[in-house]
Amino acid sequence: MPSLSSMQNPSVILYGPEKAEIEDRPIPEISDGHDVIVRIRFVGVCGSDVHFWNHGGIVKHVDPSVGLTMGHEASGTIHAIGPLVTSLSVGDRVALEPGTPCRYCIQCKSGFYNLCKGMRFAAAPGPPVDTQGTLSKFFRIAEDFAYKIPDWMSLEEAVLVEPTGVAVHAVRLAEVKAGEVVVVMGSGTIGLLVAAVARAFGAYRVLLVDILEKKLAFAEGFVECETYLSDADLDVKGNGEKLLKQLGVDGVDTVIECSGAAASVDLGIHVAREGGKYVQTGMGRPRIEFPIGVMAEKELTVKGCFRYNAGDYELAIKLMSRKLFDVKKLISSTSSFENTTVAWEKTKSGQGIKNLIQGVQD
Amino acid sequence: MPSLSSMQNPSVILYGPEKAEIEDRPIPEISDGHDVIVRIRFVGVCGSDVHFWNHGGIVKHVDPSVGLTMGHEASGTIHAIGPLVTSLSVGDRVALEPGTPCRYCIQCKSGFYNLCKGMRFAAAPGPPVDTQGTLSKFFRIAEDFAYKIPDWMSLEEAVLVEPTGVAVHAVRLAEVKAGEVVVVMGSGTIGLLVAAVARAFGAYRVLLVDILEKKLAFAEGFVECETYLSDADLDVKGNGEKLLKQLGVDGVDTVIECSGAAASVDLGIHVAREGGKYVQTGMGRPRIEFPIGVMAEKELTVKGCFRYNAGDYELAIKLMSRKLFDVKKLISSTSSFENTTVAWEKTKSGQGIKNLIQGVQD
Amino acid sequence: MPSLSSMQNPSVILYGPEKAEIEDRPIPEISDGHDVIVRIRFVGVCGSDVHFWNHGGIVKHVDPSVGLTMGHEASGTIHAIGPLVTSLSVGDRVALEPGTPCRYCIQCKSGFYNLCKGMRFAAAPGPPVDTQGTLSKFFRIAEDFAYKIPDWMSLEEAVLVEPTGVAVHAVRLAEVKAGEVVVVMGSGTIGLLVAAVARAFGAYRVLLVDILEKKLAFAEGFVECETYLSDADLDVKGNGEKLLKQLGVDGVDTVIECSGAAASVDLGIHVAREGGKYVQTGMGRPRIEFPIGVMAEKELTVKGCFRYNAGDYELAIKLMSRKLFDVKKLISSTSSFENTTVAWEKTKSGQGIKNLIQGVQD
Amino acid sequence: MPSLSSMQNPSVILYGPEKAEIEDRPIPEISDGHDVIVRIRFVGVCGSDVHFWNHGGIVKHVDPSVGLTMGHEASGTIHAIGPLVTSLSVGDRVALEPGTPCRYCIQCKSGFYNLCKGMRFAAAPGPPVDTQGTLSKFFRIAEDFAYKIPDWMSLEEAVLVEPTGVAVHAVRLAEVKAGEVVVVMGSGTIGLLVAAVARAFGAYRVLLVDILEKKLAFAEGFVECETYLSDADLDVKGNGEKLLKQLGVDGVDTVIECSGAAASVDLGIHVAREGGKYVQTGMGRPRIEFPIGVMAEKELTVKGCFRYNAGDYELAIKLMSRKLFDVKKLISSTSSFENTTVAWEKTKSGQGIKNLIQGVQD
Repeated sequence: MPSLSSMQNPSVILYGPEKAEIEDRPIPEISDGHDVIVRIRFVGVCGSDVHFWNHGGIVKHVDPSVGLTMGHEASGTIHAIGPLVTSLSVGDRVALEPGTPCRYCIQCKSGFYNLCKGMRFAAAPGPPVDTQGTLSKFFRIAEDFAYKIPDWMSLEEAVLVEPTGVAVHAVRLAEVKAGEVVVVMGSGTIGLLVAAVARAFGAYRVLLVDILEKKLAFAEGFVECETYLSDADLDVKGNGEKLLKQLGVDGVDTVIECSGAAASVDLGIHVAREGGKYVQTGMGRPRIEFPIGVMAEKELTVKGCFRYNAGDYELAIKLMSRKLFDVKKLISSTSSFENTTVAWEKTKSGQGIKNLIQGVQD
Repeated sequence: MPSLSSMQNPSVILYGPEKAEIEDRPIPEISDGHDVIVRIRFVGVCGSDVHFWNHGGIVKHVDPSVGLTMGHEASGTIHAIGPLVTSLSVGDRVALEPGTPCRYCIQCKSGFYNLCKGMRFAAAPGPPVDTQGTLSKFFRIAEDFAYKIPDWMSLEEAVLVEPTGVAVHAVRLAEVKAGEVVVVMGSGTIGLLVAAVARAFGAYRVLLVDILEKKLAFAEGFVECETYLSDADLDVKGNGEKLLKQLGVDGVDTVIECSGAAASVDLGIHVAREGGKYVQTGMGRPRIEFPIGVMAEKELTVKGCFRYNAGDYELAIKLMSRKLFDVKKLISSTSSFENTTVAWEKTKSGQGIKNLIQGVQD
Repeated sequence: MPSLSSMQNPSVILYGPEKAEIEDRPIPEISDGHDVIVRIRFVGVCGSDVHFWNHGGIVKHVDPSVGLTMGHEASGTIHAIGPLVTSLSVGDRVALEPGTPCRYCIQCKSGFYNLCKGMRFAAAPGPPVDTQGTLSKFFRIAEDFAYKIPDWMSLEEAVLVEPTGVAVHAVRLAEVKAGEVVVVMGSGTIGLLVAAVARAFGAYRVLLVDILEKKLAFAEGFVECETYLSDADLDVKGNGEKLLKQLGVDGVDTVIECSGAAASVDLGIHVAREGGKYVQTGMGRPRIEFPIGVMAEKELTVKGCFRYNAGDYELAIKLMSRKLFDVKKLISSTSSFENTTVAWEKTKSGQGIKNLIQGVQD
Repeated sequence: MPSLSSMQNPSVILYGPEKAEIEDRPIPEISDGHDVIVRIRFVGVCGSDVHFWNHGGIVKHVDPSVGLTMGHEASGTIHAIGPLVTSLSVGDRVALEPGTPCRYCIQCKSGFYNLCKGMRFAAAPGPPVDTQGTLSKFFRIAEDFAYKIPDWMSLEEAVLVEPTGVAVHAVRLAEVKAGEVVVVMGSGTIGLLVAAVARAFGAYRVLLVDILEKKLAFAEGFVECETYLSDADLDVKGNGEKLLKQLGVDGVDTVIECSGAAASVDLGIHVAREGGKYVQTGMGRPRIEFPIGVMAEKELTVKGCFRYNAGDYELAIKLMSRKLFDVKKLISSTSSFENTTVAWEKTKSGQGIKNLIQGVQD
């Protein structure tokens, strides 16, 4: 590999399972007046990155003859701006929302650009077209998807705006209100942030569920919460009764599932109260055994949850600014750009919560 | 069996699978000032009655040493009124909403009495207590759960207010709005009425799905609709694509599932558009294989649906009064009170849509 | 005035009260890839046009040294398309939604582009900039604001998509639901269409209120409705009681005010039921005496209503396609382009409902 | 006046403006199985009490030949319970929600018992019937309107559950969400509590407006907030611009008006953002000059707000239990039962925030 400093736009390219290279790519150009070019400073590793690293893709897979620039959680500084840009200046520090919706379809105009069929989300294999990821020196994005961060926020913390945005989106969909008892299934990055955001929305009590004691112990240090360790000796009914007995309620107002595990979905539906709400944020097996009878009889509202949309990033930054929780606690390691695959391996083996990759240094 | 005319309050008592007797029971007394005593005129047979007839119950079963008075769809005339009753007079013709909520819990006071844990719904085995059904000469109910019917409506049609109320509840939960494309899974009594009610809510197009051609043919004569005959040679993806191609859309706004069949749930989730809505009205197996990945990625809103609550009966009567659909077409047969089990057998064997039982004659 | 045929882009320019000229203007050019150039075929006269004609503007006024191209209700055919346009072809017949939102602000991305501060709506004087109106031979608009009309719809009827869109927006804001009793204050174009749209949303009863008997007589021929002629001898309480007595209800579910008259606002608030809804669509005096005590005690929801946004035009076209009402009945006259001011004068003097102006002929 | 200890049920009876007597009344009896008899411990003075004291009533006035037992904010202990009561025991400490809805009308069953036409609210003159107030030794109420208070809460603080319930109702109607900028007009008891509850709902910034500097100074010690002192030299536009400049925003998400003053309503409407929300909690003159044009153009949602309903008291107690604000700070004085009119006079002359009256001592 030639030195990074000799490259224009060094980028981490995935060619298939466990095949990744750092290669030079052209610097992206401003193509729309509202575009900005971002100098990437930090990139976060997400479970989906690891899935790509293991399997070469999720639903669609990378074309081994072309490769795909990886990465979608990122912070950076503004390197250049298009002629119509008014909200940003060169040098501004930004958190990136790594997608570009079409802005013309009814979903985009109705407030649901996350459901836009023309959305080009970072680091996704085509067809119709591969989209660039953020594991590059330079990245192009529309100005309104690069969010200026407050002075107090470091560029490392700014990477966490993305998962906080995921959590905000989930809690908004769940319509968590003051006074509610909320159960969060799964205590990874998203579960922890969902718990913290639910508190910021006024949740009266938040209980985190996991199968690992150490993750629940971490949770208690991150957010004011109760915890429930899933009892492997009990079935879903048994765990449900035990959990509700611990809480001292007949059922909970809101469940936000952040693990994707089938057993966790099942338990979540069981502990919701009559008329309660359930949001599916975790992604696991696409088809599972599901207690539809319980869902129907309790007249639950169950919602799918997909990425984030208008206002989620703004609110994530506001909540972080209120210092109601400290995302720095979630940052476990920072690897160099050259060691991207090391960072992926750490996440793969369950080391730490959020592992970062530093952008290309000058 | 002694003659019905020699009995005070002849009642159809179920003692277990395929064990039913007509026996005398005490005439119910007014116990609360708002109670009325209804002389039952017609009772409808519902799928759940047949399930009781076959299996002696659904989740809870009848105590064979005590027996249970059956029936929950009914019309009648007011026989007596409590001292606080102001909305009804003796002789008034009424459609019955066959439940009594507690009125004191937070669900009752928040607009969700259908989710009241203290609800005593007709013809349900205890514990804590068996509740009376409507297959009696006399039946007690609170005045506000006996709805005066308009002059134009016959007492036979009044029985259909109950399933129309079920349909209203489902369509309200689905928040069907003008302009929507709505798919209704299953073309039985509830599916047909859901389709008709969805039209009354302004649905632009309504498509009914079934596995039986004759039921779809009937549907076309009952409500302005399109139909799709499930193709047994295709899997859920194949049926979904075929159905959407027929409609000429990428996905539908709202799906209301009225069959309870697992394949139908699956298809329903597959044809909903991104951001679409799905309501589970049908009751089938309590646990099924469910396409949770599709639900999550499309960010669907999936709702359970349980009976009816405030305003549903009033709206059912209003919609029937607008003559947008004719429930008389759904009435397939009328059996005498003595032939109650004959009516159950008809429904069991799929004869007709809605089979009625006439109340005890003078 | 030179002949229209000798001009590139003849346009009706207003220079101040009662000062309008037809002048040549440059043909607009495609500036964004999604732009289309529309050959204008028909333009409708709206009350606001007449207000401009009388006063030279509403809040902002035309600069007499520059002039303003008038017109905002229009239909046309596609004359040219930008390189990114995929939804339209040259020759397509379209109804125009005459605004261009910024697409980048939080309002645009949240589903409220009608509230976008950067919206450039047709025929509005600056600052910051005058926007072009539709009273020209050619007009530029983004492809998604030019709605292809169905074959059955004439280009004259297509002009009525705009006021129908206004009505759809109002009825959606009012959240009119099946079974409701709706009162519409004012029986002009918008009131009539609001009544028709409310019926299409499932309103059980619709009552139109006006001070002119002939307008109510027209209404009865246009939409299935009841009518109430305001009684000049009664105060607001008296009229409210009389109106509700006629309806036979204690209060109505929804009021949609379409006149802007202070007395009409007052009456509307008085006849709404406890917990009822009220939408202010009419524009009149900006400050009026308002019964805030009645509004508060009845816990009404009162909404402002401004133009239209995502989905309103699509739904307007769908409702027109269901033939639930016939907008042709609203078209009172068609003037030539040269006689634009004649059409304005007709509307000013209350002649007819909707007066049209034909676009420049070849 | 005979000694209180010689009376069965000493009660404060108002006979007209500034005419009040303590007289003996019969101890109320349990009339419904769910009734409880409460021994009143503390009663709060509310602005409406003072209005009655000054004018003999608000809309309806006391009959001077009969008199009216005053009081509606109260705490107490359970003295006796009806045969169906399950949620309370003799001796339980409770906060009272001083109304009894009919439980049978559509409003009661739809979640809006505060809008029930049959509601019997404490201390209201008839017709049809005078309702008892809480300024008695004993008071009857349904069990579900007497809320058991937590051990940590004193009976003095329990009186404040009522105004906190008012605030909860307002903030719920306003649908205040995390991240919002909220303006509260008026900094009396209700305004202060609305500000505190809005924070508990996740409001990002809360600004209180008043015309008295000392009230704003008090506010800053009660709740994390910003303040704006109305500038008497400026008109509504001037104050609006100054207020928004201070906040650094173009408009605020939510305004909750708690003063009832016409100028305050006007300012509130002016500072709301496009698409913003406004709730009218304060009660002042029933008819005012209102900026309806601004409301319409910004497409505001304006809601009336009347008392409280299902869940408001429960949530008030939960929020107080989270110790997010301390209602003890609002308690300015405690007068003896015999000095009830002294307490009224204190409130009348603006002394203190919330003046309490102690119940009859043994």
